[in-house]
Amino acid sequence: MELIEKAKKAKKASAILSATTTEEKNAALNTIADELINHKDFILSKNELDIQNGKETGLSSALIDRLTLTEKRINDIAEGLNQVAKLKDPVGEKIESWERPNGLQITSVRVPLGVVGMIYEARPNVTVDAAGLCLKTGNAVILRGSSSAIESNKALVTIIHQALEKTALPADAVQLIEDTSREAASAMFKLNDYLDVLIPRGGAGLIKTVVNNSTVPVLETGAGNCHVYIDESAEKQMAIDIAVNAKTQRPSVCNAIETLLIHKRWADAHLGDVVKDLQTNGVACLGDDYVVQHATDVKKATEEDWATEFLDNTIAIKVVNDVEEAIEHINDYGTKHSEAIVSENEGNVKRFFQAVDAAALYHNASTRFTDGFEFGFGAEIGISTQKLHARGPMGLKALTTNKYVIEGTGQIRE
Amino acid sequence: MELIEKAKKAKKASAILSATTTEEKNAALNTIADELINHKDFILSKNELDIQNGKETGLSSALIDRLTLTEKRINDIAEGLNQVAKLKDPVGEKIESWERPNGLQITSVRVPLGVVGMIYEARPNVTVDAAGLCLKTGNAVILRGSSSAIESNKALVTIIHQALEKTALPADAVQLIEDTSREAASAMFKLNDYLDVLIPRGGAGLIKTVVNNSTVPVLETGAGNCHVYIDESAEKQMAIDIAVNAKTQRPSVCNAIETLLIHKRWADAHLGDVVKDLQTNGVACLGDDYVVQHATDVKKATEEDWATEFLDNTIAIKVVNDVEEAIEHINDYGTKHSEAIVSENEGNVKRFFQAVDAAALYHNASTRFTDGFEFGFGAEIGISTQKLHARGPMGLKALTTNKYVIEGTGQIRE
Repeated sequence: MELIEKAKKAKKASAILSATTTEEKNAALNTIADELINHKDFILSKNELDIQNGKETGLSSALIDRLTLTEKRINDIAEGLNQVAKLKDPVGEKIESWERPNGLQITSVRVPLGVVGMIYEARPNVTVDAAGLCLKTGNAVILRGSSSAIESNKALVTIIHQALEKTALPADAVQLIEDTSREAASAMFKLNDYLDVLIPRGGAGLIKTVVNNSTVPVLETGAGNCHVYIDESAEKQMAIDIAVNAKTQRPSVCNAIETLLIHKRWADAHLGDVVKDLQTNGVACLGDDYVVQHATDVKKATEEDWATEFLDNTIAIKVVNDVEEAIEHINDYGTKHSEAIVSENEGNVKRFFQAVDAAALYHNASTRFTDGFEFGFGAEIGISTQKLHARGPMGLKALTTNKYVIEGTGQIRE
Repeated sequence: MELIEKAKKAKKASAILSATTTEEKNAALNTIADELINHKDFILSKNELDIQNGKETGLSSALIDRLTLTEKRINDIAEGLNQVAKLKDPVGEKIESWERPNGLQITSVRVPLGVVGMIYEARPNVTVDAAGLCLKTGNAVILRGSSSAIESNKALVTIIHQALEKTALPADAVQLIEDTSREAASAMFKLNDYLDVLIPRGGAGLIKTVVNNSTVPVLETGAGNCHVYIDESAEKQMAIDIAVNAKTQRPSVCNAIETLLIHKRWADAHLGDVVKDLQTNGVACLGDDYVVQHATDVKKATEEDWATEFLDNTIAIKVVNDVEEAIEHINDYGTKHSEAIVSENEGNVKRFFQAVDAAALYHNASTRFTDGFEFGFGAEIGISTQKLHARGPMGLKALTTNKYVIEGTGQIRE
């Protein structure tokens, strides 16, 4: 079976990889980058097969766009690898160290996870990005992309293998599962003997399937039903700018907002203005009774709307009586991703920060900053919406674990 | 349904609990400790019901012993709570803080996980220990003990509730599932809407069932197929002392060793002595062909024996040609728990530390030190054998996650 065979190779490679130096890993990333550029014609020709096939099978133009590689996109992918090579290597870091009364010297050292499984959709750039981040952190990776990108993915991994052959890193550290059937994906969910973690990247459906069926530990990424809450004391223009930016700057991503919560007294004064600004920016507004009554062109929001990640130019607007009602709404409907309060009231901000259960909480800033690059991590493997291991934007450290190494002089336990 | 109703209460309580101060939490732990001692007769009388029932249903004397509470054991349990009250509260700690070029101030703050699920066997002390560690870290807890301890657990939680009523903490923060059917446990595995983590404590069977069936993220604890490797250069007496201690000091626990690996040249000189010392300490020795041939009273080990966690006075002994063969054996058969090398060769120690994939690696010390108390954590919720979130002994920090709080002045994303 392809999966088991490749998993065995990956596990074996991970042992070799974990012993390579930062310099060797960085050199390998730069070599892959060069080889991708050197073989861009080959990659583009294979990508063309996926595009043709996508058109024949009626893929939407948005999906075709996600699938499409161009010379510029390949250059960007290669440049991404060069950037990752420049980042600090977290592996080998001494996290903490202490001595026990009996003389044992305990040190917690950062080490690779081992073998990372990635299940993802459409975009072929994820193939290279994920491979780059895993290699940098000393992890082998088993990639399972979607059938629509299979020719592109095969071409990219062929080039990665050719490049790795020229380096100190084992080529087997990057494995692509070519069987894109559901059965192959399901088999990955149970691959506990070989996979240390499984990371799904894609739509809510994919993530839910992985979380519900995987016995391999999962790093859950993605779904974002995010909110901006405009408090009574919020500065008018700042609040409007943040709400509009958080909704419209890129509506299709997880850190864009879906619902705007407004304090009743702020709404009494400025509701019309914020709704108008949103509409001017192409946003369709849904609202509760108050909003429907006090603003123009607003449809009534259903119960379901408050729980919906629209991922497009739609927003739901609700008026609340105080910060507590806003917090309750967010904790009821939110997905623990990114939540913002616009306020000049310190007490309310403190309460919001304390009580809202989410990975990233903003005061007077747009939720759109929840991102590995915006946080300054230099890379991002995804945005975690779970609480174990890593929360929020995940950079290189999220792909590592620790080991306790203990130096003794013959200590035994009494 | 009992489970959903109690889960809702726990979730609601966790929001209140997360806002309580360290002083309030510590006072509550001390109050519970006092009340347990004040009501020890009540607790002992209920425990007696479980013991009677256990005897009638033919529970082994070892299990009856685990189940049995005494005045001293109740005092120890109460003292455990007082000790946890004295530990540093990890909640609220600023983990890191930095400023971005756009002026955003990002701080990572340590916060409770939320609601912790515990599934455990027999010992009623786990009921109080787990409640104490969860309350200290601001987490609500849903406890699901075994049917054999149900009367004891109900009594303990009744006293915990009575005690909490006198404190600033919500009594609902501690919930005991009284339905001890398999169906109730299975329902907990899927309680993703209410549980942030599920921690199984008990035998390998229980842990495997939870890992294989839970969609709630699991903190895997327990199974330990641990090894001591005696290198060519090991000091004779130190090596023997460590091997004997790691095997015999408490054979029933996960950080005791199951297999002893010995370098061929060390074995040529000292095999008889180490085997004799083990046997003198009541250990039954299994071995490979070399060991069977060169030592007395050693039975041939089967392939299965190398993978077995004996948890009693049995050891498997294998002779290897070098440190690489030892590493390979450990990585093949070990459970990534605790592994020791006894050696005076720095290069071999370094290689062992680098290549063995386990939570705790020892040089010239017994594996028996893998323990929250021995590490100086002051408490232990279990020993993690997984790589995500927490590895090795888990203290209070393992029951926390982080939140990013971001202070802005109106920043929006361009």
